[in-house]
Amino acid sequence: MAKINANYDRLTAGYLFPEVARRAQAFVQAHPGVKLLRLGIGDTTEPLAPAVIQGLRERVERLAKVEMYTGYGDYEGELALREAICRAYAERGIRLGTDEIFVSDGAKSDSGNIQSLFSSESVVAVEDPAYPVYVDSNVIAGRCGSFDSARQGYRGLVYMPCTEQNGFFPVLPAARVDLAYLCSPNNPTGAVATRANIRRFVDWALEHRAVIIFDAAYASYIRDPELPRSVYEVPGSERCAIEINSFAKSAGFTGVRLGWSVVPNALAVEDGEPGKLNQMWRRRQSTFFNGASNIAQQGGIAALSEQGHAECQRIIDYYMDNAAIIRSALLGLGLTCYGGSNAPYVWLKTPAGMKSWDFFDKLLAETHVVTTPGSGFGPSGEGFVRLSAFGHRADIEEAAESIRTNLRLG
Amino acid sequence: MAKINANYDRLTAGYLFPEVARRAQAFVQAHPGVKLLRLGIGDTTEPLAPAVIQGLRERVERLAKVEMYTGYGDYEGELALREAICRAYAERGIRLGTDEIFVSDGAKSDSGNIQSLFSSESVVAVEDPAYPVYVDSNVIAGRCGSFDSARQGYRGLVYMPCTEQNGFFPVLPAARVDLAYLCSPNNPTGAVATRANIRRFVDWALEHRAVIIFDAAYASYIRDPELPRSVYEVPGSERCAIEINSFAKSAGFTGVRLGWSVVPNALAVEDGEPGKLNQMWRRRQSTFFNGASNIAQQGGIAALSEQGHAECQRIIDYYMDNAAIIRSALLGLGLTCYGGSNAPYVWLKTPAGMKSWDFFDKLLAETHVVTTPGSGFGPSGEGFVRLSAFGHRADIEEAAESIRTNLRLG
Repeated sequence: MAKINANYDRLTAGYLFPEVARRAQAFVQAHPGVKLLRLGIGDTTEPLAPAVIQGLRERVERLAKVEMYTGYGDYEGELALREAICRAYAERGIRLGTDEIFVSDGAKSDSGNIQSLFSSESVVAVEDPAYPVYVDSNVIAGRCGSFDSARQGYRGLVYMPCTEQNGFFPVLPAARVDLAYLCSPNNPTGAVATRANIRRFVDWALEHRAVIIFDAAYASYIRDPELPRSVYEVPGSERCAIEINSFAKSAGFTGVRLGWSVVPNALAVEDGEPGKLNQMWRRRQSTFFNGASNIAQQGGIAALSEQGHAECQRIIDYYMDNAAIIRSALLGLGLTCYGGSNAPYVWLKTPAGMKSWDFFDKLLAETHVVTTPGSGFGPSGEGFVRLSAFGHRADIEEAAESIRTNLRLG
Repeated sequence: MAKINANYDRLTAGYLFPEVARRAQAFVQAHPGVKLLRLGIGDTTEPLAPAVIQGLRERVERLAKVEMYTGYGDYEGELALREAICRAYAERGIRLGTDEIFVSDGAKSDSGNIQSLFSSESVVAVEDPAYPVYVDSNVIAGRCGSFDSARQGYRGLVYMPCTEQNGFFPVLPAARVDLAYLCSPNNPTGAVATRANIRRFVDWALEHRAVIIFDAAYASYIRDPELPRSVYEVPGSERCAIEINSFAKSAGFTGVRLGWSVVPNALAVEDGEPGKLNQMWRRRQSTFFNGASNIAQQGGIAALSEQGHAECQRIIDYYMDNAAIIRSALLGLGLTCYGGSNAPYVWLKTPAGMKSWDFFDKLLAETHVVTTPGSGFGPSGEGFVRLSAFGHRADIEEAAESIRTNLRLG
């Protein structure tokens, strides 16, 4: 008699984004003809860079020719791509070997799967608020208890509040934590960890032999040269941190799918000597995965070329100009918001202490702007909504104008 | 103090194919100038069909245009692709809804991940021999004990021998089994389950409320019109079976990456009403995965078009002609072999009761032909090697000729 993995039943209703989509759709059905202004999902909207398109084209044509066709690639990704990724790290003074890079179909997959390397008894800490995958993957794997409605959190999971008071970077866990997920630039708050912030967590991890899972998927949005774009800019992190990254937001690959993780050879844990976790991830990926699409990988190589990088950077600048437009509209109304300066997300404090979903509904009803309720990212996200800067300029301007004109404030 | 998932340490050394690659490379290094004749990994070698190339091209061009660019797609795959998959099933009299189809980056991912839906206490049965992913994913998830060297199998895992005596289809499990993995056409034996074979397992599963995971990744290689290409050709299976399939071998997408799974709405288990597992897989995929590459999906749509299907079928015929060449060479030497008639794999019985790895080494040394040792697929694979029919015609002929000429038989 087969039985289900009952951990799935612990998950709270609906993944956040499907629920946002459901409410938006319901609103449109109730108000036919209304044009929604979507600042909800952080989805890229601008076409791929010309150099990237050229890379994709060339790979497709190779697949059409008997002498150039290739089938299965290396589980860990094509060497040329891993070399290009290493070169990009080297430009920031970080030396990584190609055997420390694991190409995947995206940061979401790696963020969800990485927990498989660790004991089911591990105590997990997440930033609060955080991207839901860190939490949900650990719930499914059985590392969390049931959902506590009063606390709006899972029992057994350590929430590290990111609040206005601490500048949206958590204080060190007081009790035992084995795995800590950090995301910088942060989704959803748009906050970026400083070197000192990371230094503190690395020292803590080394002292307690904990592991940091560092999600740097938005690193290319950092404009302040003083802010670190990789956890490995902080020495010692190679002994305690895994980094996850992606082409989704740096090159517009949300649909093309490509990412990578770094599992350093120096990384060690209590019962795993240096190299052990690197080998385990290699085994995990070669067992559960057959490599990212070869076409996407060629696109990734092109995105990391000199021309591709410059072209992708212009698209990033475009989205960051969008962020400035959104911030300006909100600040002009006297609202309080964060992020949006080194990240494509603006973290808006709801006025008059409104609940996130209530303000989501209010924005939808009054301005037709779709956002993402902060509470969907964790209990400390309550009282905030996330606005995404991804969108065509005209749509962003229309949304900003609609907020400016139609939002009824107290 | 982080600790590792110690289940990884239960895995026996190296995934099978890396070990094959290692020995082949070592042989070449020891014998410079030798040309290896590779019949080892089942990797496609012929270029993609023209219609598929056209589909890929068109999608790349869409990504270059602001009015046609798209980012994140549906987690479960593009509707047009799921509709095309449903139409392909309908042609064989199988009615499936698009909400029962889940597109993925390949059958390997789904084969590895599907176990996550079930209780960690589940008793798992695999065909012996079997594709290693079924076993390894369950070892990592903690459903198996340590490896028993004497039995050449994991404690707690139920091995269902597929032997010459039973026509390479297993008898029903005698003891409790909750999840049974079946693969037809089988990798590695090349055997295809008959309707009666499947009927027997479906009746067993319905009686015991067990679940069948049916891997049909090689279904397009079936030429005998009497043999079922899907588990759902057997009524009742929709209440007890999940089917996994792929474009890897039907359209040459080993590197492009695309597959799908069917989790029927009617599927139910002891503690999961009909629809429950369908919803759980939806949740699993939307949590751990962000959809297959949109470019690959367009290629899949093209492969299922009338023209694409016809073109892909010609490539399949080409590989099946290869299989006939390999079979003919082996049979001509008086060797015993199976498969290769409705599957791209020939399952060769080693002469004089040689061990699989010994015969692998002998074939490599004497004929320079790389195969895959049967014992790598499970204890009942001992005494066999797998020969893959994937390859350019000239290479297949050269390998066949080398075996005919150079293999020294006692």
